[in-house]
Amino acid sequence: MTKLFEEANNGLMKASNVLVLSHRKPDGDTLGAAIAFKIWLGKVGKNVTLACIDKPSKVFSFLPFIGEYVDKFELKDFDYIVFVDCGASYMTNFQVEYSDLFSSGIPILNVDHHASNDNFGTVNIVDVLASSATTIIYRFFKFLGVEIDENMATCLLSGVYGDTGSFMHSNTSKEVFEIASDLISRGADFKIIVKSLFRSNTVNGLKLWGRVLEKAFKTPDDVLVSVIKEDEYASCDASPDQLSGVIDYLNMVPGTRFAVLLNEDRRGNVKGSFRTRLDDLDLSKVVADFGGGGHPKASGFSMKGKLVEDVRYFIMDEDSNKKTLDF
Amino acid sequence: MTKLFEEANNGLMKASNVLVLSHRKPDGDTLGAAIAFKIWLGKVGKNVTLACIDKPSKVFSFLPFIGEYVDKFELKDFDYIVFVDCGASYMTNFQVEYSDLFSSGIPILNVDHHASNDNFGTVNIVDVLASSATTIIYRFFKFLGVEIDENMATCLLSGVYGDTGSFMHSNTSKEVFEIASDLISRGADFKIIVKSLFRSNTVNGLKLWGRVLEKAFKTPDDVLVSVIKEDEYASCDASPDQLSGVIDYLNMVPGTRFAVLLNEDRRGNVKGSFRTRLDDLDLSKVVADFGGGGHPKASGFSMKGKLVEDVRYFIMDEDSNKKTLDF
Repeated sequence: MTKLFEEANNGLMKASNVLVLSHRKPDGDTLGAAIAFKIWLGKVGKNVTLACIDKPSKVFSFLPFIGEYVDKFELKDFDYIVFVDCGASYMTNFQVEYSDLFSSGIPILNVDHHASNDNFGTVNIVDVLASSATTIIYRFFKFLGVEIDENMATCLLSGVYGDTGSFMHSNTSKEVFEIASDLISRGADFKIIVKSLFRSNTVNGLKLWGRVLEKAFKTPDDVLVSVIKEDEYASCDASPDQLSGVIDYLNMVPGTRFAVLLNEDRRGNVKGSFRTRLDDLDLSKVVADFGGGGHPKASGFSMKGKLVEDVRYFIMDEDSNKKTLDF
Repeated sequence: MTKLFEEANNGLMKASNVLVLSHRKPDGDTLGAAIAFKIWLGKVGKNVTLACIDKPSKVFSFLPFIGEYVDKFELKDFDYIVFVDCGASYMTNFQVEYSDLFSSGIPILNVDHHASNDNFGTVNIVDVLASSATTIIYRFFKFLGVEIDENMATCLLSGVYGDTGSFMHSNTSKEVFEIASDLISRGADFKIIVKSLFRSNTVNGLKLWGRVLEKAFKTPDDVLVSVIKEDEYASCDASPDQLSGVIDYLNMVPGTRFAVLLNEDRRGNVKGSFRTRLDDLDLSKVVADFGGGGHPKASGFSMKGKLVEDVRYFIMDEDSNKKTLDF
């Protein structure tokens, strides 16, 4: 990785105008990594433009320079492009409008931690074992001896905190704590990160989560299921995107094989979100039948259709055999 | 604190049989601190008895030696007593049966981090700024040069993690991350801690939480309220203790002054739990009228009574004045 860090630094130092791209529907990791990068490059005299095809959510308004994100640019204005946290070349969605994004000859630095990364850059700093892209940027700064100021520290910690699920996911390594500890000592505003990223919901969002949790049930095959039908959004005055995160709560029940949340939207799509606590279950195989994908422990699918309730009964006999009744 | 650490160590080294007491309704901090202490003292040749008046919850079954907790002992068998994480001398509840607990002449070490601590020990290592009792034990071990093994690390991290609300409470300091990082590097089983302490619920517990969230509403005075009446436990097949933690979710709504959860139990008690996101609001004053107490940001009360619904309306006039209607 040392050699890659050197290559990346050499390329960047020769550049004057740098475009830093975040993936669509940006999360704290892609935003934090990009902005920390921008702050550093600004200090060494580079002009930096931050771009993302989707407007960052209001929950990220605490990040410095978040207001500078653009969704359009002139590719010819730049002599270096950085992609952060983009799990594949298409993840920014900019390649649709900028068909020469990868063929313009402008060198590309690709900093990522997703196993799906297709190494689309001129320099690819891709570590699939890193907890987050911000973790890699942190290592890069350490390698270069960059002084991490308060703002950079807040940006990096936002990514580390977000991508480890507030230090709860299994990618929470010793390194993650060392980084968090160091960033807090450098003035990262941990309080605002927690408040913004993990302690925010609306009353309507709470009601929708409440409905999901209250409707949860365990199947005889130890799958924890909950369902939200299209008409339920209206009764909670909520929208499907407000479901984000609740699947992790369905997954809190020990003794279940996995948790599923099924939801319909108004456009005739059914989305399935799957999570498991088991290490030996590959959910990406479970969702493959529905054209879905993801990680072994967190997968999902989305398909055209609607949810239809079909209650079935079976009898568990004295020897614990299932007798299915079809009628 | 150095001097206190020396005094404590001198006392302990002279002892042969040590009684380590955890507070009633034990949490991860009092258990983790006590067991880490026991492991260390065992290594230096002491006989150690762990005692708690209440049986530790099953969620702590991953802690080493948790099965050795007793709820009875012979005071005369010991020549040193350690209280860990006991916010006041009565917090173990053992003083009821053992009336000479504090007058037997046996030296007492009191290790705690609560502001309410009444310094009941012979040696009082009380630091109200420490995030947890385990934090203090960690410092003590570091001071003495004790080698923290895997089991001790898991115990200490359980307390640190529990008392900082999985690193979300405002007591999550730089020191907390340094300790967590160090303990993980020493083999603390972080995964089982998260799974056991923060990723466990029952289907019935989820349903009850769901009901609380779904019934949440915001008053015109920006207080977020939810209510569970006694008959609702039966319909979820749940019990009042399964509400533990849900108040923190009610407190996730920005723009509210504070969150309140009111619940009735079958014995005719009404409990109120209060949380706020605001730094300038002292909830302990809010609950004082109900005979309650607690911290400025987290308070509660419990009183005999039942919940009665009383819907009121008022009119907000054009100048945003409230006009209360009494009828």
